[in-house]
Amino acid sequence: MAQKPWSGRFEGKTDQSVEDFTSSLSFDRRLARQDIAGSIAHARMLAQQGIIDPAEGDRIVAGLTEIRREIEAGEFEFDPALEDIHMAIESRLTARLGEVGKKLHTARSRNDQVALDVRLYLAEEVEGLIADLAGLRLAGVRLAHLHQNVIMPGYTHLQRAQPILFAHHLLAYDEMWRRDQMRLDESLSRTKVSPLGAAALAGTTFPIDPAAVAAELGFPRVFRNSLDAVSDRDFILEFAAHASIIMVHLSRLAEELILWSASEFGFVALPDAYATGSSIMPQKKNPDVPELIRGKTGRVAGHLMGLLMILKGLPLAYNRDLQEDKEHLFDTVDTVRASVTLMAGLVENLTVRPEAMAAALHGGFLTATDMADYLVTKGAPFRTAHEQVGNTVRFAEGQGKELWELSLTEILQFAPGAEPDVFDWLSIENSVARRRSPGGTAPERVAEALERAEAEIGLNLHEQDI
Amino acid sequence: MAQKPWSGRFEGKTDQSVEDFTSSLSFDRRLARQDIAGSIAHARMLAQQGIIDPAEGDRIVAGLTEIRREIEAGEFEFDPALEDIHMAIESRLTARLGEVGKKLHTARSRNDQVALDVRLYLAEEVEGLIADLAGLRLAGVRLAHLHQNVIMPGYTHLQRAQPILFAHHLLAYDEMWRRDQMRLDESLSRTKVSPLGAAALAGTTFPIDPAAVAAELGFPRVFRNSLDAVSDRDFILEFAAHASIIMVHLSRLAEELILWSASEFGFVALPDAYATGSSIMPQKKNPDVPELIRGKTGRVAGHLMGLLMILKGLPLAYNRDLQEDKEHLFDTVDTVRASVTLMAGLVENLTVRPEAMAAALHGGFLTATDMADYLVTKGAPFRTAHEQVGNTVRFAEGQGKELWELSLTEILQFAPGAEPDVFDWLSIENSVARRRSPGGTAPERVAEALERAEAEIGLNLHEQDI
Amino acid sequence: MAQKPWSGRFEGKTDQSVEDFTSSLSFDRRLARQDIAGSIAHARMLAQQGIIDPAEGDRIVAGLTEIRREIEAGEFEFDPALEDIHMAIESRLTARLGEVGKKLHTARSRNDQVALDVRLYLAEEVEGLIADLAGLRLAGVRLAHLHQNVIMPGYTHLQRAQPILFAHHLLAYDEMWRRDQMRLDESLSRTKVSPLGAAALAGTTFPIDPAAVAAELGFPRVFRNSLDAVSDRDFILEFAAHASIIMVHLSRLAEELILWSASEFGFVALPDAYATGSSIMPQKKNPDVPELIRGKTGRVAGHLMGLLMILKGLPLAYNRDLQEDKEHLFDTVDTVRASVTLMAGLVENLTVRPEAMAAALHGGFLTATDMADYLVTKGAPFRTAHEQVGNTVRFAEGQGKELWELSLTEILQFAPGAEPDVFDWLSIENSVARRRSPGGTAPERVAEALERAEAEIGLNLHEQDI
Amino acid sequence: MAQKPWSGRFEGKTDQSVEDFTSSLSFDRRLARQDIAGSIAHARMLAQQGIIDPAEGDRIVAGLTEIRREIEAGEFEFDPALEDIHMAIESRLTARLGEVGKKLHTARSRNDQVALDVRLYLAEEVEGLIADLAGLRLAGVRLAHLHQNVIMPGYTHLQRAQPILFAHHLLAYDEMWRRDQMRLDESLSRTKVSPLGAAALAGTTFPIDPAAVAAELGFPRVFRNSLDAVSDRDFILEFAAHASIIMVHLSRLAEELILWSASEFGFVALPDAYATGSSIMPQKKNPDVPELIRGKTGRVAGHLMGLLMILKGLPLAYNRDLQEDKEHLFDTVDTVRASVTLMAGLVENLTVRPEAMAAALHGGFLTATDMADYLVTKGAPFRTAHEQVGNTVRFAEGQGKELWELSLTEILQFAPGAEPDVFDWLSIENSVARRRSPGGTAPERVAEALERAEAEIGLNLHEQDI
Repeated sequence: MAQKPWSGRFEGKTDQSVEDFTSSLSFDRRLARQDIAGSIAHARMLAQQGIIDPAEGDRIVAGLTEIRREIEAGEFEFDPALEDIHMAIESRLTARLGEVGKKLHTARSRNDQVALDVRLYLAEEVEGLIADLAGLRLAGVRLAHLHQNVIMPGYTHLQRAQPILFAHHLLAYDEMWRRDQMRLDESLSRTKVSPLGAAALAGTTFPIDPAAVAAELGFPRVFRNSLDAVSDRDFILEFAAHASIIMVHLSRLAEELILWSASEFGFVALPDAYATGSSIMPQKKNPDVPELIRGKTGRVAGHLMGLLMILKGLPLAYNRDLQEDKEHLFDTVDTVRASVTLMAGLVENLTVRPEAMAAALHGGFLTATDMADYLVTKGAPFRTAHEQVGNTVRFAEGQGKELWELSLTEILQFAPGAEPDVFDWLSIENSVARRRSPGGTAPERVAEALERAEAEIGLNLHEQDI
Repeated sequence: MAQKPWSGRFEGKTDQSVEDFTSSLSFDRRLARQDIAGSIAHARMLAQQGIIDPAEGDRIVAGLTEIRREIEAGEFEFDPALEDIHMAIESRLTARLGEVGKKLHTARSRNDQVALDVRLYLAEEVEGLIADLAGLRLAGVRLAHLHQNVIMPGYTHLQRAQPILFAHHLLAYDEMWRRDQMRLDESLSRTKVSPLGAAALAGTTFPIDPAAVAAELGFPRVFRNSLDAVSDRDFILEFAAHASIIMVHLSRLAEELILWSASEFGFVALPDAYATGSSIMPQKKNPDVPELIRGKTGRVAGHLMGLLMILKGLPLAYNRDLQEDKEHLFDTVDTVRASVTLMAGLVENLTVRPEAMAAALHGGFLTATDMADYLVTKGAPFRTAHEQVGNTVRFAEGQGKELWELSLTEILQFAPGAEPDVFDWLSIENSVARRRSPGGTAPERVAEALERAEAEIGLNLHEQDI
Repeated sequence: MAQKPWSGRFEGKTDQSVEDFTSSLSFDRRLARQDIAGSIAHARMLAQQGIIDPAEGDRIVAGLTEIRREIEAGEFEFDPALEDIHMAIESRLTARLGEVGKKLHTARSRNDQVALDVRLYLAEEVEGLIADLAGLRLAGVRLAHLHQNVIMPGYTHLQRAQPILFAHHLLAYDEMWRRDQMRLDESLSRTKVSPLGAAALAGTTFPIDPAAVAAELGFPRVFRNSLDAVSDRDFILEFAAHASIIMVHLSRLAEELILWSASEFGFVALPDAYATGSSIMPQKKNPDVPELIRGKTGRVAGHLMGLLMILKGLPLAYNRDLQEDKEHLFDTVDTVRASVTLMAGLVENLTVRPEAMAAALHGGFLTATDMADYLVTKGAPFRTAHEQVGNTVRFAEGQGKELWELSLTEILQFAPGAEPDVFDWLSIENSVARRRSPGGTAPERVAEALERAEAEIGLNLHEQDI
Repeated sequence: MAQKPWSGRFEGKTDQSVEDFTSSLSFDRRLARQDIAGSIAHARMLAQQGIIDPAEGDRIVAGLTEIRREIEAGEFEFDPALEDIHMAIESRLTARLGEVGKKLHTARSRNDQVALDVRLYLAEEVEGLIADLAGLRLAGVRLAHLHQNVIMPGYTHLQRAQPILFAHHLLAYDEMWRRDQMRLDESLSRTKVSPLGAAALAGTTFPIDPAAVAAELGFPRVFRNSLDAVSDRDFILEFAAHASIIMVHLSRLAEELILWSASEFGFVALPDAYATGSSIMPQKKNPDVPELIRGKTGRVAGHLMGLLMILKGLPLAYNRDLQEDKEHLFDTVDTVRASVTLMAGLVENLTVRPEAMAAALHGGFLTATDMADYLVTKGAPFRTAHEQVGNTVRFAEGQGKELWELSLTEILQFAPGAEPDVFDWLSIENSVARRRSPGGTAPERVAEALERAEAEIGLNLHEQDI
């Protein structure tokens, strides 16, 4: 067993089961790259500030660079007794360089070091996720383009409500994903804050330059309060919340894809490459990917809850409970990025069945609202019109007819203001075409929205009008 | 029982228990003011666009204004059979105005109407909460000012770690509350988006002007997709997440206040006005307010969880599940605003006991890190210095002495590089004074931070450098 | 403002906003009946044990009885300054009886008192909920009986899988509700434990008889450790967990009812009395009740989360955080009981459309597994048979035919072991009839299961074989 | 890439990223032992029932036994393309045995197979956890024994309240752990239910004997409804809830250990083997193990929330979302078992500091309740006595005296009924000794409780009186 770097004051040895329980190396080794980048920046700063000798600084940087190579090449041996990635790397450095290696930890603590590593990691992943979302938006917009004039029933309460363009429905998700991008982008200003230099909790007696470290690492800001720097996990909570919202959005589309690919709807067919079969039922093709995405929503929200519970009631500054943040975070990142990417692939390869959508436009009296609107144009107050149409629908339902299959005489029984042009308002196509209010489903509105979305996806987020 | 506005198509009557179960009037009556504001803006727009007659528009606006007066005066009778606040008000309007009242609902649906009401409500509450947080920051900064030179032990793992200024500790919370303000402020750009004009889900056939409605209501933006407008609850999820983070921050301070007011710490005394006694133990003074704030963290996080679960897997567009959002939201708003306000009162009236803090600076070897830093200045690598000090601490502990009570000879047994000036580094005051790295606890750093915080609290958030 | 019963040691007065924040009277007044029952039992025990005078005991009991009458009659005035229901009642008692009233609180504390009240309340509600679930089971069994021979598609992954009896599907829910009853029943043994006599946390110096109090209140057990008695909220957590599982079950049925009443399925029609309409779309009939039940699942799970978070990390014994348990509990009880009851009403009044179910049996190759089983009986290993049928299905799909519409020659291309009797295995009715393995969907199995369920619903839970 | 066992009906190949996303082999390989046990029992039953040939049955059993050996020996190669552990094993079986291997999957589906595997796994783990809890109880009881007469302050609101025995405090946790054992034990009756024979969802056409399979596997019960059998995850939810409650209990003790090992309390010292040091502060000894246990409470509760969310709104029967249950379950089991075991080690090795506890008995007026009780014995109503003592405390606090340091004259100013024997009631030892009410802290009560606990720990749970 390697000697603990803090063992000076201890008499007993750590119990093996305790070592297993407390070690984070099995998961925080994932931060090796960030840890080394942070240490290199730290060593350079120490040398620049004259805290260590420039030559020592160079040797440390060279040693860390070599360790990075070892890790990338899979040659690095991770010894669980070393507790965490920070100690594993520092210990290796000292093994290589001797005494000089022991100078690296001057003017810092694992408390600020781990906070830095996680921030470096998350900043990169968030930027990747924003790009993943752009890919998903692109897939959605392309699919909308391909089927720009396809009409489907719009639903509320899962009951057919009014005819809409399929593209309009897809663009509702584009709005969600755009907000998701915005939220992530905004949170970066709180993630890209370098905590290095807070040391254990109170700052340090050495004449350090935290801003230089931040600049080298590409972080625009430096912590303002040392206690906050080591105990703040807001940036993780924020990300977990944003990830949960992203998963909620994906779960809604997943639910729709599952419904739409059910025989009863038949609106879409999933690509074979995104479905699996049954071990017993030879005829099955199952929407596994959207089902798993829907299920993983619970996983991500569970992580958010776990994180909130960990932080609740924790006194300042660092407490070991915080070690738990990493596994929640890593799995959240992995889950949400894979889900967004898979959903993009699914959307891209979706087969749309316009004829099934068209068939579903019948039987739900989908233009009843149009008839009420029509009666309003003929002078009826809306509520009165609404009631007249309600009665008409009840009659038509009893007759087993569509509204447009009724005779004018039949309609007049319930809606005395109707005239022959009422039939013009009962057509599905006209219903869609007439909803040309801003943000509505009329083809020209949807065409504009598609153009805007396409333009945005290529743009830097800050240039977009949210 | 009042007639349902949608009863035209129905044969059976609503079951009474169903009515109780589905009615939202008991809680959404809280949105009466917003509902009327939205309806007035809608009516004006309908008139401006020629969808209703200008005179009719005027009568509707006057009628709504009168209903608002009735509600404010407590004269309005809420009939549970009317399902929700929207129907309650529209029904009253028609009772007052007759046929004209039935025109108000032209070109809108309850789906976009309720989304607007909630957005108007939340935007106002968020602005109020940002102000509440400013009040809390002010209380914290004032308390820090009052005790600017008080030294206390800084803790990690609830073990005494290094001496810090009490003001520095308080300012760690200022950072949290500032981030809380920032997050809330950023979310407003997604809350202040008017959904009116989305109608049920697809837009409307009437030539409406949603931007005019938004402008009248002070919202800078209008929805971009009608399906999204009626099914989007991101702004509520975002708020619930931000509220949960705020409560986590408060719970951490609450925990500390509970600890600090325990006899064992004795660092602070809560004002009598913020504590309560025991029904059985005559000597007790209990920290009820921080305990309740800590407990309410679970409540707010529970609401967030509930909201995520409600939205998970919901197909577009509106589903009745969404009605559940309101009680979660209202209680979240009430809880977090009351908690922030009470915490401000508590901080403002806190009695600080510097002598108890000073007493706690002994016995924890709080300047051990300083001694290690000192040895580094004498040429030892940090790790070596750390180990030497660890051994020194073990010796001192065995002797029942403070580090500064050891003789130089005793110290030299473990730290051969020590010289007489080592004692200069073992003093508590010097330890604090030496931590003048940026964001550190040295008095000049804390003084700067206090000045900056004071300046910021008075500033518009957008002017602040985050 | 009323004088606080613990004010002896205090100098300052409670701040009004603090009073509002800390008072529980607005919600715990709901425990008035239990509080009085507990106090009556306590007073009788005090008298029996000679701790107070028998005549005093009688006067206290009479006074409490009268206060109960006042509360039931709505004559009792709840003064928020009195903090909680316990103080409200004791204060009223002293106002009525003078000095004698001040003796009631001998040998107890609010800590054990409130724990008792909540346990009394919950025990009663749990028994009510078990009965509610019996009602729901009965409604399900009745509906199954009414449609005992109706065949529908069974689904996995929301894809049609195999034909099943509609009654068999309903009976799957009966299993869930039965487990729900079992869990609730088991938890009662931990709820019906009287904590009275634990006093504040350590027991009391008075010669009390806690078992006598428990017996009078119908509780079979008494607490075993006084600290545990006042800090234990396991029984609430357990209930919240069971309630969450119940809601998950209801949410699954709710989802199915929503799907089944969608036009695309059309398997059921909800009663008009359990649905509502749209304010804009005159033709809509929405499944509001199942949607709300589904949504309320989030609410109940949110309460569970809140409760866990409240209790996490709380030191013994009582902490004020625990006051928060009540609102979570009350709303959980109300929500789950209303949801179970409404679901029972919904199931009872459901219109089933066997013809729509029958129509859905076509087109999904639902007897493909039967064909594979058939090939196994002809000697093929199951995996080989599965693959042969898979190929057959692919061919049939290409031809737009059902499996039973293929010719034997066509089948033999893929399944060389098939003989003319293969068609006997491709029939929907035979498929159901053949699944007569235990717990399977064959009519005789379902008939047995229905009989057993009916018998159980009427039985005491302890007599059932779980 | 291995051929999918369900590929007969598919044209396209599975996308590689889809394969990675949907494969469960990386985690469900953990179920290999259970999967093989289930398959052996299934094969034997198939042979007994004449569904396969006895010789075939023997070959399959032998083949599975050999595969088990390969897995145990680490010789088995898990091919991710095989989706899950079921396919990995069946595929290997067929590779070894040829055609016979393809017969194993007769009359079952992965849906019932995976449900069986998870139930076998969980039943074993729950029994292990019950034993772990017995170990923890034993450690607690032993520690209580060792310090049977040590008095410490009992706390409410983290304020010193009344003196109690340290052993009494520990025994409060014994009650919690006993309830934890009970709950787990009760849940086993719902976990040990064999689902095998439900097949995909509807039962099977083969003449299987599910009871024989259950008996061979040691499960006392068989599923009653085939749809329920494949879609029921109640047993996992129940376990996750029980695990969350266990973690809440551990988190409370963890919090107390953290507090007690803080310098301010100093009641206990953690063993060196259960603590770690600081990388920067040489003097630190941190309570890492209790901190991590406290933190992991969030993790387990997060899993519970995730599971509830996954199941919410899922239609029957099996959906792929359910695959997500396993990672939540595995990590819950691992976390709770490790936490219980580590806590037992911690308790066993705890150093108790009776002198620090004794010192803390001063200064909190801990016998104020006793004085009130005393005044009641002298005829004062409790409320009056309470107020008199409250005033006495205020006076004593002003004088900087303990209650027992006041003169009788001083006491008589506030409590006119006091006589010289009042001092007898103000002693700490007498206070503890007098609380001999059932479940109270008096030494004879605690001795009885210790004896009972010891006896119970060795007993079968069903023999205990709960």
